[in-house]
Amino acid sequence: MVKLTVLYGHPDDPDAFEEYYADTHMPLVDKIPNLQRYEAARIVATPDGSEPPYYRIFEGYFEDIEQLQSGMAAPEGQAAANDIPNFATGGATLFICEIDA
Amino acid sequence: MVKLTVLYGHPDDPDAFEEYYADTHMPLVDKIPNLQRYEAARIVATPDGSEPPYYRIFEGYFEDIEQLQSGMAAPEGQAAANDIPNFATGGATLFICEIDA
Repeated sequence: MVKLTVLYGHPDDPDAFEEYYADTHMPLVDKIPNLQRYEAARIVATPDGSEPPYYRIFEGYFEDIEQLQSGMAAPEGQAAANDIPNFATGGATLFICEIDA
Repeated sequence: MVKLTVLYGHPDDPDAFEEYYADTHMPLVDKIPNLQRYEAARIVATPDGSEPPYYRIFEGYFEDIEQLQSGMAAPEGQAAANDIPNFATGGATLFICEIDA
């Protein structure tokens, strides 16, 4: 199993981010081919009380790296990826992870 | 559901990191009270082919923020947290996430 992780930086306007994310972005994510499931979360704190370095984390799960690559290369995958700059005013850091067996 | 996410920076010696992580650190993680499950993954790539900004991601799941805090405040939670500097030569970024319903 692999996952595509997205770390969103703090947006200029969190309310606007949340509205766009829920109403526009996630419906695009739902259409990504080969996506088995996903987990989205809001970052609310750090153990030492400092400001969290990111605002949100998203992880999309695929069966293997080939399924991830072909899903994200499909028009629906590209539509979801290309939508990120439309709302991620704090930037987005993406990486691919191989989950330990 | 909440999770404690740890992003590990690139270690000086990945083989030494992996050995310590599997043989010493994860057995400490297994003892953290209230920990429901965890997911550990190696970061292998980025979509644009650039160097991944982190080396590993760990996510530990707890029922709620109170369970997380009391688990991490317990001696076993402190032992796991205090072990991180023993092997994370590339640093570690920790934050707490509330998973979207």
